[in-house]
Amino acid sequence: MITSAEYLKRLQSMKPTVYMWGKKIDIPVDDPQLRPNFDAIAIAYDMPLEPKYQDLMTVISPITNKRVNLFNHPYQSTEDIRKKVDMIRTMVTETGCPCIARCVGSDALATIGITAYNMDKEFGTNYYQRFLDYTRYFQENDITAAGVVTDARGDRSLRPYQQPDPDLYLHVVERRKDGIVVRGAKASISHAAVCEELIVVPGRGLTEKDADYAVAFAIPADTKGITFITVAKAPATQPKMENPVSRRYAFSDSMIIFDNVFIPWERVFLCGEWQFGGGMGSLFGDFHRLSHCGCIPGRGDLTIGTTSLVAKYNGIRNKGHVQSKLVDLVTHTEMVYACGITAAVKGFKTPSGIYAPAIIYSNAGKLFESENTTSDIGLVADICGGILITMPSEADYLSPNTSDYMKKYLKGAVDAEYRIRALHLAADITITRWGAGQAAAEVMGAGSREAQRRAIHNNYDFEKREALAKRLADITN
Amino acid sequence: MITSAEYLKRLQSMKPTVYMWGKKIDIPVDDPQLRPNFDAIAIAYDMPLEPKYQDLMTVISPITNKRVNLFNHPYQSTEDIRKKVDMIRTMVTETGCPCIARCVGSDALATIGITAYNMDKEFGTNYYQRFLDYTRYFQENDITAAGVVTDARGDRSLRPYQQPDPDLYLHVVERRKDGIVVRGAKASISHAAVCEELIVVPGRGLTEKDADYAVAFAIPADTKGITFITVAKAPATQPKMENPVSRRYAFSDSMIIFDNVFIPWERVFLCGEWQFGGGMGSLFGDFHRLSHCGCIPGRGDLTIGTTSLVAKYNGIRNKGHVQSKLVDLVTHTEMVYACGITAAVKGFKTPSGIYAPAIIYSNAGKLFESENTTSDIGLVADICGGILITMPSEADYLSPNTSDYMKKYLKGAVDAEYRIRALHLAADITITRWGAGQAAAEVMGAGSREAQRRAIHNNYDFEKREALAKRLADITN
Amino acid sequence: MITSAEYLKRLQSMKPTVYMWGKKIDIPVDDPQLRPNFDAIAIAYDMPLEPKYQDLMTVISPITNKRVNLFNHPYQSTEDIRKKVDMIRTMVTETGCPCIARCVGSDALATIGITAYNMDKEFGTNYYQRFLDYTRYFQENDITAAGVVTDARGDRSLRPYQQPDPDLYLHVVERRKDGIVVRGAKASISHAAVCEELIVVPGRGLTEKDADYAVAFAIPADTKGITFITVAKAPATQPKMENPVSRRYAFSDSMIIFDNVFIPWERVFLCGEWQFGGGMGSLFGDFHRLSHCGCIPGRGDLTIGTTSLVAKYNGIRNKGHVQSKLVDLVTHTEMVYACGITAAVKGFKTPSGIYAPAIIYSNAGKLFESENTTSDIGLVADICGGILITMPSEADYLSPNTSDYMKKYLKGAVDAEYRIRALHLAADITITRWGAGQAAAEVMGAGSREAQRRAIHNNYDFEKREALAKRLADITN
Amino acid sequence: MITSAEYLKRLQSMKPTVYMWGKKIDIPVDDPQLRPNFDAIAIAYDMPLEPKYQDLMTVISPITNKRVNLFNHPYQSTEDIRKKVDMIRTMVTETGCPCIARCVGSDALATIGITAYNMDKEFGTNYYQRFLDYTRYFQENDITAAGVVTDARGDRSLRPYQQPDPDLYLHVVERRKDGIVVRGAKASISHAAVCEELIVVPGRGLTEKDADYAVAFAIPADTKGITFITVAKAPATQPKMENPVSRRYAFSDSMIIFDNVFIPWERVFLCGEWQFGGGMGSLFGDFHRLSHCGCIPGRGDLTIGTTSLVAKYNGIRNKGHVQSKLVDLVTHTEMVYACGITAAVKGFKTPSGIYAPAIIYSNAGKLFESENTTSDIGLVADICGGILITMPSEADYLSPNTSDYMKKYLKGAVDAEYRIRALHLAADITITRWGAGQAAAEVMGAGSREAQRRAIHNNYDFEKREALAKRLADITN
Repeated sequence: MITSAEYLKRLQSMKPTVYMWGKKIDIPVDDPQLRPNFDAIAIAYDMPLEPKYQDLMTVISPITNKRVNLFNHPYQSTEDIRKKVDMIRTMVTETGCPCIARCVGSDALATIGITAYNMDKEFGTNYYQRFLDYTRYFQENDITAAGVVTDARGDRSLRPYQQPDPDLYLHVVERRKDGIVVRGAKASISHAAVCEELIVVPGRGLTEKDADYAVAFAIPADTKGITFITVAKAPATQPKMENPVSRRYAFSDSMIIFDNVFIPWERVFLCGEWQFGGGMGSLFGDFHRLSHCGCIPGRGDLTIGTTSLVAKYNGIRNKGHVQSKLVDLVTHTEMVYACGITAAVKGFKTPSGIYAPAIIYSNAGKLFESENTTSDIGLVADICGGILITMPSEADYLSPNTSDYMKKYLKGAVDAEYRIRALHLAADITITRWGAGQAAAEVMGAGSREAQRRAIHNNYDFEKREALAKRLADITN
Repeated sequence: MITSAEYLKRLQSMKPTVYMWGKKIDIPVDDPQLRPNFDAIAIAYDMPLEPKYQDLMTVISPITNKRVNLFNHPYQSTEDIRKKVDMIRTMVTETGCPCIARCVGSDALATIGITAYNMDKEFGTNYYQRFLDYTRYFQENDITAAGVVTDARGDRSLRPYQQPDPDLYLHVVERRKDGIVVRGAKASISHAAVCEELIVVPGRGLTEKDADYAVAFAIPADTKGITFITVAKAPATQPKMENPVSRRYAFSDSMIIFDNVFIPWERVFLCGEWQFGGGMGSLFGDFHRLSHCGCIPGRGDLTIGTTSLVAKYNGIRNKGHVQSKLVDLVTHTEMVYACGITAAVKGFKTPSGIYAPAIIYSNAGKLFESENTTSDIGLVADICGGILITMPSEADYLSPNTSDYMKKYLKGAVDAEYRIRALHLAADITITRWGAGQAAAEVMGAGSREAQRRAIHNNYDFEKREALAKRLADITN
Repeated sequence: MITSAEYLKRLQSMKPTVYMWGKKIDIPVDDPQLRPNFDAIAIAYDMPLEPKYQDLMTVISPITNKRVNLFNHPYQSTEDIRKKVDMIRTMVTETGCPCIARCVGSDALATIGITAYNMDKEFGTNYYQRFLDYTRYFQENDITAAGVVTDARGDRSLRPYQQPDPDLYLHVVERRKDGIVVRGAKASISHAAVCEELIVVPGRGLTEKDADYAVAFAIPADTKGITFITVAKAPATQPKMENPVSRRYAFSDSMIIFDNVFIPWERVFLCGEWQFGGGMGSLFGDFHRLSHCGCIPGRGDLTIGTTSLVAKYNGIRNKGHVQSKLVDLVTHTEMVYACGITAAVKGFKTPSGIYAPAIIYSNAGKLFESENTTSDIGLVADICGGILITMPSEADYLSPNTSDYMKKYLKGAVDAEYRIRALHLAADITITRWGAGQAAAEVMGAGSREAQRRAIHNNYDFEKREALAKRLADITN
Repeated sequence: MITSAEYLKRLQSMKPTVYMWGKKIDIPVDDPQLRPNFDAIAIAYDMPLEPKYQDLMTVISPITNKRVNLFNHPYQSTEDIRKKVDMIRTMVTETGCPCIARCVGSDALATIGITAYNMDKEFGTNYYQRFLDYTRYFQENDITAAGVVTDARGDRSLRPYQQPDPDLYLHVVERRKDGIVVRGAKASISHAAVCEELIVVPGRGLTEKDADYAVAFAIPADTKGITFITVAKAPATQPKMENPVSRRYAFSDSMIIFDNVFIPWERVFLCGEWQFGGGMGSLFGDFHRLSHCGCIPGRGDLTIGTTSLVAKYNGIRNKGHVQSKLVDLVTHTEMVYACGITAAVKGFKTPSGIYAPAIIYSNAGKLFESENTTSDIGLVADICGGILITMPSEADYLSPNTSDYMKKYLKGAVDAEYRIRALHLAADITITRWGAGQAAAEVMGAGSREAQRRAIHNNYDFEKREALAKRLADITN
């Protein structure tokens, strides 16, 4: 396991092709708006090295027999899954960083392992050995990878093979002796600009005609032919008070264009087996929604703490309706966590030996969160009051023209400075592009609400419950 | 451990004073409308005797060193709590009986144990030994007790000591050498008419002036001076098709009047220690809400199965909006269960050694359920269609005048008989006095929504979260 | 216009074939469980005769030039629509009767008028004159008709012509010189057993192959070949306190079998014109949802009053959370009414000259109500407390064995008798088969939620709003 | 009536003391971030001058007997109120500008008129004449005023007179022969920096000890002693595609400090009559919530249009769940409008002759909107997909490095450019500081949810409904 400083050093020596705001970014981690994304990932390097977190955040790998970061370890037990949930929540709650980023690649890696094993059983391929080799490399080098799933998709009423432009889903354009060549684009890929590797899996169900779109692989981010078009979420300017979270930790998303990119066979984990393509997207979703059952409660901790604090500073903390709204924030937070814990406790062993979270609970937690995330902004705003939106800027607070007025008139049940700081924090997590974007991203992070509904519907044992109903109603058909 | 037949025999030899529908009921378990309440309890005697359920539903008691029903065992581990949740759900799901009844006394018993220990520490009393003795008796005889908590309450804006009539809360009217005499009434006591013992604890917070209202004890149901006024929920007449659940299993509730009832000291567990009175009510609530996290998912299984079946029989099972509504029923069900599992996993050891479920989760599960229970009837009704409400009676189905018409015209995607049976089942669990009563009872079973909100608010660690907010916002006060 | 006594007399001389509880009912209005349905309709005969309601509830008919009941008058202005909403709410609020029943036939009549006119324009038929003649008869005799819409439907994934049994939708089996013969069944027809006439329209969209299913007509309820299988909602026994609403006013629903029923041509309003069949069902829905925007607020008045009263009697009327829940009941009530008023104000003139309510608002009001109706039971239950479900019976209150106990211990902030009466009222409108059935019936009365969603979606001018979006975004396609 | 150009000219000659971003702004309307706020107000000058809007947006004033802008006309009929709702919706829907700004001052003016009349009746003061004189001036000069209501408030658990710093609520510090001197600050005052006049009323209920805080007046914005600390919502930089709404129309909010400001008596409308202070805040709220029932539906039009367009461009417009979510947006929009229309239709005449909207409906509409506004962002985000949050910037779209990639890979069911534009529009109204701020501002614009709940609770006729309940339940107390 390495430190974040060592990871930083490796990233500084990489040369991915990244564009942002219309310009080429030479070394992403040195860009002031991408650095907070690196700083988020850094948490997941450094906290596990602290002795007090060793048990929660690291594990002896059965592959390397060495201690590895839990993020890089396909689960070997339900307890591993439970630890993942608690590790992610702890990282978020301790730092206030809403997203620790390393889960995505981790979830893609497990997806590949489980599917590789099943494919080998069905087709006699040797994907699982490739997966083990890649995982060994991954663990030994303490890699952070982006999980690269969603395609450009074009007209979503059409299947991949039906698109007028065949490149709107990533596909194999050439099969060589030493590897394959792929073309297409993946969209909405979080953190990719500060990751070392890309783990790519298909993003939707496929038919036989889509066989060329059944492709999964892992590849360094600076591989030839790969272009990132990136958008950073960190604020362009960073006043001291106004961006207490987003100046510390913030993310980026990338469109990734694959322009005839060569992938050597040892890095290919699916190539043409369309029957398994859709399953990879679903499985990734089930894993990744579990990860959200860890980070969302951590974000909830910050939201609850901030809102409770502002309520105090406004002098309304003991009002019945305020307490009731805080309880809403608490239950929204803790029920997502409860889904995560239960998805772990009820997790199951796949044929590969890798454990997976119980699908119903990881999806229910994510769906519940998706359906409350923007609505909760309303609860926060209601408690903070109009001043959340209308507060003068930090510059006015610092200006001699207006500072005294603001100190006098923005006093609450506490000195103005504290109230102003707490309100800026509340704004940063709700109504800035950063905060509102976070909430909206949660609506379809790890898939849309409909994706989660389908996952729940298609995996729930309705027949068992219908049998109970029939028995009671004396229905004998 | 005894069988339900043995329990029945004991009940038939008891002579409680029970009135119902204006008449005296001599042997409640022989009354056709109270018998289904006994039959619900019987499940909790007989299933644990089945070998396949031994591990889930029984445990070796550290008090008796013998195998006892898990219901009669104050939890000794978080695993015991988890088993309780799964035991209750299993009993409900396997039988379709919505409420297994033995949990209430079980939750009251644990409440007494935990509080007794704490009181002894504070006041040097010897309640805990009495608790152990009573628990030994309870386990050795495999008792079922009612949990008797809610007082008559009168004008709820007044404290007990402020009521014009001092009897509106149960209180001590005399302290004798051999015991105490109590007077007052408890209301809304479920299943009491078919229980052997009553375990009585205070139902609300108390002040010093309320000291006489701080009283807890356990007593046989046919103790002199006790009168039950009971209301049964089983249907008065029991056609074959129309009441598939409620003709099998149904409940009763009782007002219990204590008219100068003598309680020997060895059965008294609180007497005047008003500081601990309110805590008992809260603790009982926390335990009992956990029990609901087991039975509600079981009821959900029946609701989901019934609704899915009717949708099939109506020919609309594969419509998107129907599937979406079924997923709502699933998430409402499984998130309550997830709260129960998490309340168990995160349970904690009290000073007495008895484990308690994590308060936030048992309350969140119950609150979530309370806020969805009647609304879910709407989802069921929407899928079943107007015929749920308007279907002709079983008598018309059986009558030669109309039977052929109903067989012809109530056909769906299945023969009319199956559809009619499934619709009667749907009606029985939603719109009959039984079904609608069940839903409404869930709104404030184990306390009102506000009670759960208060429990969550008062037990959540807001300060920890405020500290995080302060750290991020550089607030130094 | 006639009195309810005159209407009663007419009904007593009719001989419809009605079965209920497996027996033939000779004179429905003399049956104790159907009489409360008649009593509901009676309101709509008698209140309009009171001078103070003349302006609101009657109108000079342009057909007869005489004063007629507003229920029997196809709207000639938006003001007529507004009056209908206010008339219905007034009738419900003044009497506590949740459903006045005459609206259904009224809505079917207007549906026929509008469609007849349009068909005549398109096909050169003479339906509109038949409609005028029938309406004259209807007004001159002050008729009450059932609106007969929903077919038996069988497997709902199949169209009428696809059903294995062609009778599962009502259809024309013979065209004669003097009329037509129809066969099939209509289900879930409210109040039909105490109506004089049946106005029948198709219940769904039709294709050319369904042409025989395109049939609309009006016919006396005791026409040969018609059989009612009826289910009454009034309680079988009628204690004084327990059924304060349902012993006064209650409804019935009928399946109506048409077994080769002859309809003379002058009573036929659609016969084979499948293009207009589906439109009639939709139009009826739009009209009938408007009627609900009147009765639902009236029911809300009773729910709000009852709940507020119980809260007072419990001593919790001034608690913040109680007031907040009452406000929820108020807004749920008044927003439905606001939709009704707005549907009236924004109503439009159809080519026939008959006015129709604005589709978006009549549907939005009904949908909103459908999505809150059962959930509101939870609000009522939460305020009433567990005693709503667990209260001993009226018989116990009257019995000398238990009366004193109940008088002493069911006192609240008011004498026990008042509290008990208020709680029985609350139970009657929420958890009895009557009350819970009412709520569930509202879920799909006037069509399912999905029907309303489709109506809104298909009638909303999305293009106008898209044009605004395009203009702002400089989109020029 | 003047044009916006004339209004602009007047504003350019005013010299208010405005600070923003730490600097003094000499002429607010010339500041690029405040100009879009002026442009919003300009709509309300120019549209009423168009002949086609004359009937809807102007009226003959009974004070001046000349045609005036409807915004400057205290309602003389329910029809005036209805027109206000439709005028505001029309202005918003036609331009896409979410807030037309002139309503606030208009609502404050009517508040003063109604209260002045009532005070004169009670105390024999002559405020109403002053109101008439001021209104004449207001109409003749076609003024735009800010409505200045909310005080700084300090610790909100304390009343004004209890605050440690007496200036935390605006108050009278001196009464002179020619006028009064006031000190304090008002917070969260929308649009104030581009208004000519400030109309100031108290923001909360007052007791006798708060008499000095009972003060209302109107004064030019550049009166000596007034300082604005302003925050603008327009984007600092204005790319062509990214800010399609906010580069055109955007708002500002100001804290306004009154540092010993002199108000001549003829401009004072309340001074010490504490009994009427709280009523002014409530009345302003009732009026202003009605205004929201006009603008919110207009915003809804834009949200619906944008979302429907993006759904089309994504190729998912005909999916059932997408249509269902669009229907949610439609009902949320149209039910607010229905409340506005009904508040107008049911409006009432105050003793002054000025009409007021029906309190229940204006509050219900606003409350409903407040409780849906941020949750609706989730619906929009869910339909738009992750690309809403993750789309590369306009600069990348224009850059030769990345433009071709974006054109190729952001194609949907339409050319990439249109899809990108539509998505930028969706982002501008939901997740930018502007869009998210709009939504959050709606949560407590015109008062918090609790304020609306109190208004509804305190104005609803519960007794009438309780009387109905008593009548049915035979309760005779």
